[in-house]
Amino acid sequence: MDTKIDCLDHGFVRLVDYMGSDLSVVRAARVSYDAEPRNDGSDAKLIHYLWKNKHVSPFEAVTFTFEVKAPIFVFRQWHRHNSWRFNEVSARYSELPEEFYVPALDQITTQSMDNKQMRTDKQNPNANLIQHDIHNAGRYAFKVYHEMLRDGCPRELARMVLPMGTYSRMFATANLRSLFHFLELRMHAHAQHEIRVFAQAMMDIVRPIVPICCDAFDTAKG
Amino acid sequence: MDTKIDCLDHGFVRLVDYMGSDLSVVRAARVSYDAEPRNDGSDAKLIHYLWKNKHVSPFEAVTFTFEVKAPIFVFRQWHRHNSWRFNEVSARYSELPEEFYVPALDQITTQSMDNKQMRTDKQNPNANLIQHDIHNAGRYAFKVYHEMLRDGCPRELARMVLPMGTYSRMFATANLRSLFHFLELRMHAHAQHEIRVFAQAMMDIVRPIVPICCDAFDTAKG
Amino acid sequence: MDTKIDCLDHGFVRLVDYMGSDLSVVRAARVSYDAEPRNDGSDAKLIHYLWKNKHVSPFEAVTFTFEVKAPIFVFRQWHRHNSWRFNEVSARYSELPEEFYVPALDQITTQSMDNKQMRTDKQNPNANLIQHDIHNAGRYAFKVYHEMLRDGCPRELARMVLPMGTYSRMFATANLRSLFHFLELRMHAHAQHEIRVFAQAMMDIVRPIVPICCDAFDTAKG
Amino acid sequence: MDTKIDCLDHGFVRLVDYMGSDLSVVRAARVSYDAEPRNDGSDAKLIHYLWKNKHVSPFEAVTFTFEVKAPIFVFRQWHRHNSWRFNEVSARYSELPEEFYVPALDQITTQSMDNKQMRTDKQNPNANLIQHDIHNAGRYAFKVYHEMLRDGCPRELARMVLPMGTYSRMFATANLRSLFHFLELRMHAHAQHEIRVFAQAMMDIVRPIVPICCDAFDTAKG
Repeated sequence: MDTKIDCLDHGFVRLVDYMGSDLSVVRAARVSYDAEPRNDGSDAKLIHYLWKNKHVSPFEAVTFTFEVKAPIFVFRQWHRHNSWRFNEVSARYSELPEEFYVPALDQITTQSMDNKQMRTDKQNPNANLIQHDIHNAGRYAFKVYHEMLRDGCPRELARMVLPMGTYSRMFATANLRSLFHFLELRMHAHAQHEIRVFAQAMMDIVRPIVPICCDAFDTAKG
Repeated sequence: MDTKIDCLDHGFVRLVDYMGSDLSVVRAARVSYDAEPRNDGSDAKLIHYLWKNKHVSPFEAVTFTFEVKAPIFVFRQWHRHNSWRFNEVSARYSELPEEFYVPALDQITTQSMDNKQMRTDKQNPNANLIQHDIHNAGRYAFKVYHEMLRDGCPRELARMVLPMGTYSRMFATANLRSLFHFLELRMHAHAQHEIRVFAQAMMDIVRPIVPICCDAFDTAKG
Repeated sequence: MDTKIDCLDHGFVRLVDYMGSDLSVVRAARVSYDAEPRNDGSDAKLIHYLWKNKHVSPFEAVTFTFEVKAPIFVFRQWHRHNSWRFNEVSARYSELPEEFYVPALDQITTQSMDNKQMRTDKQNPNANLIQHDIHNAGRYAFKVYHEMLRDGCPRELARMVLPMGTYSRMFATANLRSLFHFLELRMHAHAQHEIRVFAQAMMDIVRPIVPICCDAFDTAKG
Repeated sequence: MDTKIDCLDHGFVRLVDYMGSDLSVVRAARVSYDAEPRNDGSDAKLIHYLWKNKHVSPFEAVTFTFEVKAPIFVFRQWHRHNSWRFNEVSARYSELPEEFYVPALDQITTQSMDNKQMRTDKQNPNANLIQHDIHNAGRYAFKVYHEMLRDGCPRELARMVLPMGTYSRMFATANLRSLFHFLELRMHAHAQHEIRVFAQAMMDIVRPIVPICCDAFDTAKG
């Protein structure tokens, strides 16, 4: 089960543990402990019917735990999904390693004017300069962080100078219903690129485990 | 994993699926994918510390799905635990089998006067009569139910004559934190005997899977 | 705020308390404590946009508490909505009054053959007989219940002979997002008539309080 | 209802809206729409009994919405309380004002050695230097942020250089049960000073609204 997909410059998603399969969804829907798999297509038909008609409770019988390393601004979006369960490393407890997100040049585009919260696909003429700024700002913040720690500043205070782009790590547990809800919102074209990369990675990891459910999800999205 | 414990006259709890172990709790708390088990007692110490100090999120990395067959008045209490996830057989969809709970004679005690919601431990002098009444009422209700179905009454209407003591079946999924919360309330001396039997059965089933966590739970209860 | 709508033969929905308005949704979306209402249509446009695009969190700033009296089989469906909060009268604590649901003749139709969980719109030729059966079964169950209580049977055991059609009462609290989610599922043509009546009553009660939100909900349903 | 308490150097908690009172808890517990207040002490006795014995559902009939302005590292702790509902300003959508937390000198103490996640009460000999560093790091980060925005960098990327100490604003809705759970954890001596200030402010705001409930909470904490 060592499935790990690298994301962005220092991040990743790794499957830590899981419970269930397509058959678990079928058995939960039928409330049948030992229903045999039906390969005549009726299991697939049932799963597609359930998802399409929002009979979502059988999808709650499949659970995943992921380890995720991602920039904190990505975690901030993630943690708003309140049916997920999280265990994150604490910067009160341990010093954070010097790792922060620096976007690749082709990701540094321009502010969208149509949609106030998005960026466009058009390369920013100042991309090099901006990338440089992000890198320098991160280096500078960590330099101050290390100095403060050397000066005896408590970790819980020192961390507050670190940028939102700093990488953190967490365990994140969700059932398949909550995962699909996350993917629906976070694979959407309006979601920020940086979280879409993590959403896609989870989709790629779970597809071999629940292939029919993933098909049903894709079909319903249209 | 065919662990099944009979409960009351027709009920049971069966473990359908699970994810995790004591080590999963330790790894979630440490946010460490591959932390080795420490048999010097430090893992146990950590688990006891976490539970005692209400750092409950690491216990959410362990999940169980049970199949439960119990009287509907027991399900009604169970379903109020809103962090559990349920899939129950539907009496709109299928006819329910003629099975209803008849308490054993030694369970038919007297109304408590101290605690308005409880019963005492004292044998009721009319226990035989009461047991007989419960049995007859159940038989009569199912007789009417079957007649109504024969007369073409829709299942979703016919079911409404069935008594609260009728057995139903469900799949119930919870993480270890939610399970312990359930056990805390439903193994309590003030809980009704009939649900305590199911709570105890779940405790017996999960103990071999998460023995240290169960010790920590017992210790904290005092 | 004494808004109360009768439902079925003995039930009702009553608004007990609420917090918020259309303007609360706008202010939550804008994170603006004192945003003035804009009557140029831009508030309405924002609310429609939010609901349509599943930006549902601003709808969580409006909350309602209802008192509901309904048959227990209706409560059983209701309690599966786990973001609602409930306080129900306890039949362990108090004797239940003799009130159970007897469907009107025009509601006693036939079992659907297309959809295994539904009933049709077609009058059942045995409707009179079935109605009679339901009534008699309820009367008989309450007769036994009263006898058992007279014989000193504890309330928590005696209640188990009462039918699913017995009326119970509860306080039910939900925010507008959860209420709309309930209405989406329970006003649906596939939902059982008996719960649809209560869903519609809540819709009628909240519409004067959040008229624009209700419009947005209606529009999105299409 | 314009109750606002300043917190830290630029933050505050303000009551935006609420529903309910001590009497609402009593009525929910009794499932009684129009129960009159009992000033003979029996209402207070009931509320104390309920909270002490973990009958928490009646406390879910009282709801509050707060506006909170706090440093992002405080929000990060807050957002882990998954029964709260949040609407936060988005730095994808709007530029954030230049406001970041600089601890007062007497708050800059030393790292605790007993408890790896805490700080002590002892003044740090380098407090002046550390305060200066935090201030400078914040100024520098905002300088880069403004330059990047001037260079056409999308807001959703530019924000990632801002420090965790940056102030953000949100609406936060919770019922009284969830509020008390928050207060239990976040007024605890092990909680970080900066979030305890906000917890205390909320306690001060709700006490005049639900004085008996707050007494019961205090009593149970011992």
